[in-house]
Amino acid sequence: MDKVFTSAEVANHNTENSCWVALYGKVYDVTHMLSSHPGGAQAILRVSGRDATEDFDPIHPSDTLESLQSALIGSLFLDEESSDATQTKDTPDEIDDNSLLNLEEIEKVATSVISKKAWAYYYSAADDKITKDFNTQVYRSLLLRPRVFVDCRRCNAETELLGWKVGLPIYVSPTAMARLGHPSGEAGIAEACGAFGALQIIANNSSLSPEQVVANAFPTQVFGWQLYVQLDRRASEAMLARVNRLDPIKFVVLTLDAPVSGKREDDERINVQVNPAGSVSTQLFAGTDPSLTWHETLEWLSQHTKKPIILKGLQTHEDVAIAARYTPLVQAVILSNHGGRSLDTAPPAVHTLLEVRKYSPHVFKKMEVWVDGGIRRGTDVVKALCLGAKAVGIGRPALWGLAAGGVQGVERTLQILLDETKTCMRLLGATTVNDLGPHYINSRIVEQQIYQASAIIEHEGAVVCKGKL
Amino acid sequence: MDKVFTSAEVANHNTENSCWVALYGKVYDVTHMLSSHPGGAQAILRVSGRDATEDFDPIHPSDTLESLQSALIGSLFLDEESSDATQTKDTPDEIDDNSLLNLEEIEKVATSVISKKAWAYYYSAADDKITKDFNTQVYRSLLLRPRVFVDCRRCNAETELLGWKVGLPIYVSPTAMARLGHPSGEAGIAEACGAFGALQIIANNSSLSPEQVVANAFPTQVFGWQLYVQLDRRASEAMLARVNRLDPIKFVVLTLDAPVSGKREDDERINVQVNPAGSVSTQLFAGTDPSLTWHETLEWLSQHTKKPIILKGLQTHEDVAIAARYTPLVQAVILSNHGGRSLDTAPPAVHTLLEVRKYSPHVFKKMEVWVDGGIRRGTDVVKALCLGAKAVGIGRPALWGLAAGGVQGVERTLQILLDETKTCMRLLGATTVNDLGPHYINSRIVEQQIYQASAIIEHEGAVVCKGKL
Amino acid sequence: MDKVFTSAEVANHNTENSCWVALYGKVYDVTHMLSSHPGGAQAILRVSGRDATEDFDPIHPSDTLESLQSALIGSLFLDEESSDATQTKDTPDEIDDNSLLNLEEIEKVATSVISKKAWAYYYSAADDKITKDFNTQVYRSLLLRPRVFVDCRRCNAETELLGWKVGLPIYVSPTAMARLGHPSGEAGIAEACGAFGALQIIANNSSLSPEQVVANAFPTQVFGWQLYVQLDRRASEAMLARVNRLDPIKFVVLTLDAPVSGKREDDERINVQVNPAGSVSTQLFAGTDPSLTWHETLEWLSQHTKKPIILKGLQTHEDVAIAARYTPLVQAVILSNHGGRSLDTAPPAVHTLLEVRKYSPHVFKKMEVWVDGGIRRGTDVVKALCLGAKAVGIGRPALWGLAAGGVQGVERTLQILLDETKTCMRLLGATTVNDLGPHYINSRIVEQQIYQASAIIEHEGAVVCKGKL
Amino acid sequence: MDKVFTSAEVANHNTENSCWVALYGKVYDVTHMLSSHPGGAQAILRVSGRDATEDFDPIHPSDTLESLQSALIGSLFLDEESSDATQTKDTPDEIDDNSLLNLEEIEKVATSVISKKAWAYYYSAADDKITKDFNTQVYRSLLLRPRVFVDCRRCNAETELLGWKVGLPIYVSPTAMARLGHPSGEAGIAEACGAFGALQIIANNSSLSPEQVVANAFPTQVFGWQLYVQLDRRASEAMLARVNRLDPIKFVVLTLDAPVSGKREDDERINVQVNPAGSVSTQLFAGTDPSLTWHETLEWLSQHTKKPIILKGLQTHEDVAIAARYTPLVQAVILSNHGGRSLDTAPPAVHTLLEVRKYSPHVFKKMEVWVDGGIRRGTDVVKALCLGAKAVGIGRPALWGLAAGGVQGVERTLQILLDETKTCMRLLGATTVNDLGPHYINSRIVEQQIYQASAIIEHEGAVVCKGKL
Repeated sequence: MDKVFTSAEVANHNTENSCWVALYGKVYDVTHMLSSHPGGAQAILRVSGRDATEDFDPIHPSDTLESLQSALIGSLFLDEESSDATQTKDTPDEIDDNSLLNLEEIEKVATSVISKKAWAYYYSAADDKITKDFNTQVYRSLLLRPRVFVDCRRCNAETELLGWKVGLPIYVSPTAMARLGHPSGEAGIAEACGAFGALQIIANNSSLSPEQVVANAFPTQVFGWQLYVQLDRRASEAMLARVNRLDPIKFVVLTLDAPVSGKREDDERINVQVNPAGSVSTQLFAGTDPSLTWHETLEWLSQHTKKPIILKGLQTHEDVAIAARYTPLVQAVILSNHGGRSLDTAPPAVHTLLEVRKYSPHVFKKMEVWVDGGIRRGTDVVKALCLGAKAVGIGRPALWGLAAGGVQGVERTLQILLDETKTCMRLLGATTVNDLGPHYINSRIVEQQIYQASAIIEHEGAVVCKGKL
Repeated sequence: MDKVFTSAEVANHNTENSCWVALYGKVYDVTHMLSSHPGGAQAILRVSGRDATEDFDPIHPSDTLESLQSALIGSLFLDEESSDATQTKDTPDEIDDNSLLNLEEIEKVATSVISKKAWAYYYSAADDKITKDFNTQVYRSLLLRPRVFVDCRRCNAETELLGWKVGLPIYVSPTAMARLGHPSGEAGIAEACGAFGALQIIANNSSLSPEQVVANAFPTQVFGWQLYVQLDRRASEAMLARVNRLDPIKFVVLTLDAPVSGKREDDERINVQVNPAGSVSTQLFAGTDPSLTWHETLEWLSQHTKKPIILKGLQTHEDVAIAARYTPLVQAVILSNHGGRSLDTAPPAVHTLLEVRKYSPHVFKKMEVWVDGGIRRGTDVVKALCLGAKAVGIGRPALWGLAAGGVQGVERTLQILLDETKTCMRLLGATTVNDLGPHYINSRIVEQQIYQASAIIEHEGAVVCKGKL
Repeated sequence: MDKVFTSAEVANHNTENSCWVALYGKVYDVTHMLSSHPGGAQAILRVSGRDATEDFDPIHPSDTLESLQSALIGSLFLDEESSDATQTKDTPDEIDDNSLLNLEEIEKVATSVISKKAWAYYYSAADDKITKDFNTQVYRSLLLRPRVFVDCRRCNAETELLGWKVGLPIYVSPTAMARLGHPSGEAGIAEACGAFGALQIIANNSSLSPEQVVANAFPTQVFGWQLYVQLDRRASEAMLARVNRLDPIKFVVLTLDAPVSGKREDDERINVQVNPAGSVSTQLFAGTDPSLTWHETLEWLSQHTKKPIILKGLQTHEDVAIAARYTPLVQAVILSNHGGRSLDTAPPAVHTLLEVRKYSPHVFKKMEVWVDGGIRRGTDVVKALCLGAKAVGIGRPALWGLAAGGVQGVERTLQILLDETKTCMRLLGATTVNDLGPHYINSRIVEQQIYQASAIIEHEGAVVCKGKL
Repeated sequence: MDKVFTSAEVANHNTENSCWVALYGKVYDVTHMLSSHPGGAQAILRVSGRDATEDFDPIHPSDTLESLQSALIGSLFLDEESSDATQTKDTPDEIDDNSLLNLEEIEKVATSVISKKAWAYYYSAADDKITKDFNTQVYRSLLLRPRVFVDCRRCNAETELLGWKVGLPIYVSPTAMARLGHPSGEAGIAEACGAFGALQIIANNSSLSPEQVVANAFPTQVFGWQLYVQLDRRASEAMLARVNRLDPIKFVVLTLDAPVSGKREDDERINVQVNPAGSVSTQLFAGTDPSLTWHETLEWLSQHTKKPIILKGLQTHEDVAIAARYTPLVQAVILSNHGGRSLDTAPPAVHTLLEVRKYSPHVFKKMEVWVDGGIRRGTDVVKALCLGAKAVGIGRPALWGLAAGGVQGVERTLQILLDETKTCMRLLGATTVNDLGPHYINSRIVEQQIYQASAIIEHEGAVVCKGKL
């Protein structure tokens, strides 16, 4: 263990006969592991003979390292220029609460300090980013309708999600690779969420294990865990078994809008150059199962967890209506287009929300409807809630906050959104989130753009919803 | 009184034990006043040991200084660099009537000569300034319909507001801190209004006392006085008592769209750096009562003044319809979103005006409807009047005029608007403001964007207006 | 006459006692004329003691100079710097037919060679130029519907206007001050029109007299003459008498959309500095009668000319319907907003055309409907014709053509438009202008923006047209 | 043949008495051919005495050169500066598959390496390029509706066109002058299409003869051949006879949207300077017959080929409905506006497609409907297919691909589109192109812009389709 290798020494071991990799400052001889690697020998050989941390990190649960202990042969001598390209460019000074006024400014700071690789992964979205942009713009087309002469001394943003109390109706969406933005990673986000009573959904590809993320949680803190079903179902079942044992994790979020990866060109452009194994997204999606179907998958899932199930990535009123038939197994849906990262020109969640209001309003009584994508202002939060959402998720903003200032940066992000949300509620004349409703919104412009249903929707022989209502 | 202190000497007195502040070139020892300060001792301590004029000025009626006479201990030695940051950058030359052709050009001149603090306070609006911009843009979506073969030799823009004759249907909205733009402050605006027979509403947070503003008014000049109800009701009652005694003030305007301050980021960005006590807006709103309700507040107000009441800041047809039930106590409403400074994505007054026309047209017969926000051209004035407004208010334009050229600058602003208004009337074929009506307007684009009411509105048991008409 | 004065000598004579002006290189002593000047002595005194050509030129018929012969006292010594500011910047090379492909390029060339004064007068439009821009943009919102398998070997753009044959359905609108762009002035435009068989309407404020404009016309060439009724009706009657004697002038165009001048800020900004008497527009409108009414004016006009009357500047279907009641005295209307120069946010002629189609379609059978404003492409011409216009006018494009290349420049302008028009007709599958109709146009976007009539229109006791059809 | 002439020598022979031209490095004495040249003697004289390759090439089938053999007199001495202006600026390095991520990037590379002449011809479109831009933009207004829980392991983009199997629903539209972009020309495109099983339509003005294009085709490779009917019908008949003998060519595409050339200003601007004979387009259209009609033309065509006929360039539902009456002679239509090159403000094919769906849905059962114009993304392909298109064509993208990287560049273009198409299908939940349908599309915004039919359409006495359905 006290042996120290230079980069040059490691570089000599990049063949099937002698295959070394450096990870997190340590050097491993993984020659004997080539044949049994789930991703194939080639995936290791491509990164052998050098520091492979940046390639290894985002696609391996952090406890993978433990299983490598037997291969550890020493430390890497760190010269100044070593892992330069993928490091954050600059360590941000302690974030100044007063000077960063909104989420856009936080994103700017994060962009200036983060590595290009991380920026490309966080920022990127599918194709021409039409949906990513639309996610934000659509909220600007919704006008608010403030009422006067309402006593707004008290204003309470607390709510309940699936029966658990949370401090605000804003949760952190599952996003992978938080450690690339800041060493505290998803645990740092958890610490910030704890301070606000905010719910957090841990990504399937979290850069820390779920056990690590929830380790220091408050007793009342609520988590969800996101599942991408793996081609190797036993791997998913093993993860579910671990998650089942973690009490702070209250439900399982099955993501459905990305059976294959969208085409995220910023990610591809930058990270393919760094790493011949492909863009970060490509690597993350390598083992995901694209064969899921309603009955089979939910049946399988219900056998491996008793936690409530949330379906994420629904984008049509038809699918929402079908999901409602699976209650109580399914207790909520998240209307999402994956932050515009999956299919470009997919509709913003607000469109789907309005579709559901129009064609399948009964589902609001059967289950909770959450939304994400494009939330950047407290007014956005309030609008989604007025239109029937029970909660709204933030993905990138949490990562930008983390990258800009660690735990404190995420706290600043949540504080800004909470303050803006409450100011908006007060100015509307609403004192609790339950007061919020469509009478506070002029959604006419957006209503004129949503899908005009023209057919009766059936699912497994039953009429699920009718068009032309 | 002939004692002169340097900045360094003052700086030594910034504790609870010895607390000095410099105001308008004088130095005060306010140690003994700390415990009785309405805003709390901390608010004074934060600015102690230095020139606090810019912090003090906007949030204290100007007669506050009189109550400090006993604390006066000397003068401040003014070295060159003293109150530099918040001073106007340049003294504008005498404003040239011919060269400034429109309100946009006046704003540009004002911006170039005003202090950053004043600019930030005047210019700022909520969040992303979507509503501020929309206020102006919406008028561009309304098309005019000029008629031909109408004798337009005579053209008269005079009108009556609540029974008082005014020279033009344009009034000056209540705006605080006029002295920050020009030493003549609200009195300078009053002088200009006098020259045009224009009505002026004095802000609750006017930088001159109402007595000072109306001191040199013409006998026929008409004023209103704006009320923010204070948490300390006795303070508001005392002000009402003073206002009741001022005959030029004909009515009281109760502002309702800002029970709490909107998030004005330009203001926060610049003025929080200058002053740790917060942005100008934050300070102004410190003592405002956010608990007002229809019945209680109007009842209380009617006991403290016999002047007619105008409700300002209504943004929905529902609230306008409710207000109409309080006639004759309430004699007018002002449709306003506070110049976009309160809630971002709130509707422009034109939207509310069209809503009222559609869902509650009877209110036009019961009371007057005024509007403000975004008026920058005579065509804007005429459009609002065609759609049913009895008068339109200008807020920022009056301040920009004052900042650009003092009394003369406000006169130039009013002259431009009046000339443009009359040219527009002539080209439409209207000779008096009473001629103006909806047949002169193609509002079809905007009609397609306003709120689609879908519910019957009740207020205290009575149906106020019906949706889906 | 051989006496030569320097500028300095002339400058000494700028009082009521000795008042000289220089005009077109000659010096006049007009002291004795001050009292009898129609525009008042002050108008002369303002420009006395210097070269007043640029002030005199646009507002005096060119034969005015003859009446000054008795006052002529000598010539002005021309030093290099004399009339610099208002001269064209550069003499354009002979215009190259091949290199200037469209009207936009011709405008660019013209802008680069013309004087600032002329540019400001030509280019300017009311207020924010919203209507000017909309005039062009609205054509881009109309889509064409090309048909296939139509024999388009022959394509004929000839048509008849009020019974007179013209070579193309494009006429030159009345525009003042052509000589400011090119010495050949309106006669140069006439020469170019002659080459194409194009109709030309001579402006009331033409910089050449109507006699001069038509002097070299082809026998079959057709002209109209525009009338602004003067406050001094006898002046208008005298002009009508002269026009009545000119056979090439076939009709009188009474302009109605500018009873007072619009606010043309570019014109004001530049030309007020040059000339204290006001912008070019202000001067042109000085003597115009703003008191016209349907019955009185048409009655008067019919007594002073037997030529057919065209009413120009109609902008509502109501006024078009009223005009149709005055047939056969009135034989055509021109839908026009004065090139956006009169009232900003007035509708483009296409709006009015669609209004008429919708609410008063019968007028197309009673009289001809012409349009102008914003025509820059052959497709624009064809679209207007498809929607019912019998002809389209170009104003600025003729002036830009003249300024860019004199007669040849106007010819190039007409050639481009004619070529584009015929190409468009061929590609639609239309061989004559009579083939053109609404089935070639998708006007759906614009239809959704036009005025929604809601009232029955009466005129002098008779129902003229009904709303809500 | 071994005689070598300098440019200066050739330059002396530019008259009717001695007329030489240089073509592809050879010098020809064509004096005796002047009188018999189909395009007239003048067309040759204009380019005589110099290298006329760039003028000759695009408008002559490549086998024309053979008929000039008797006129060959030697070679042209190539000095450095000879044919500089029209050469590609740079030879692109071998195209890097990974670095070019989308069609826009390929166009950029192509633009940087191609000659100005070729760029101008490829890039140009009619007038203001409104239709060209709209072609692309309209796809962005169509939103997708991804479904979840669909097994998307398998995804097959294969389809059948007119009964022939193709590897993907994307074909290469007929585009002239491919050799100007890359020496391999249309044969290079054919090679790339062969690799993907993609259909290719050979342009009438292909820079290689149809025999050359199909020479190395795979046995299963499918081609069409585009016909512009020539004024000299015998020339077209001769070409049809040749095409009839080529088995890989399965059908004849009759282009109808360009009876005359549109006004392509980029082309005119650049290529008129190079070549006095006019723009590339002008030359290409020189001999085209503008007199075609439904009955006569199809009758004639059916006599000269037994291959199925496709009509290209239909832009209205009326014409599509008429075409459907000519089945089975006509087996498909291509909705196209010629890439925006013909008539500016003509509708994008998506408009026509939606028109047909609305007013003439029966045609989808009678024949295939293909579309082209504006396809730049796999999502665009999928959208067109969802709305009823059987295939989509790419024109410029194939040329840009060829110019950027030869055969490999076209392959990269097809690979990107195919990958994007399949990703889109998977994310929608569609496994074959037959699964695609309108339920995957929110076309509401575009539906609100298409033509509102108001009349019954008759053709030769029969009702073809009804308006106001």
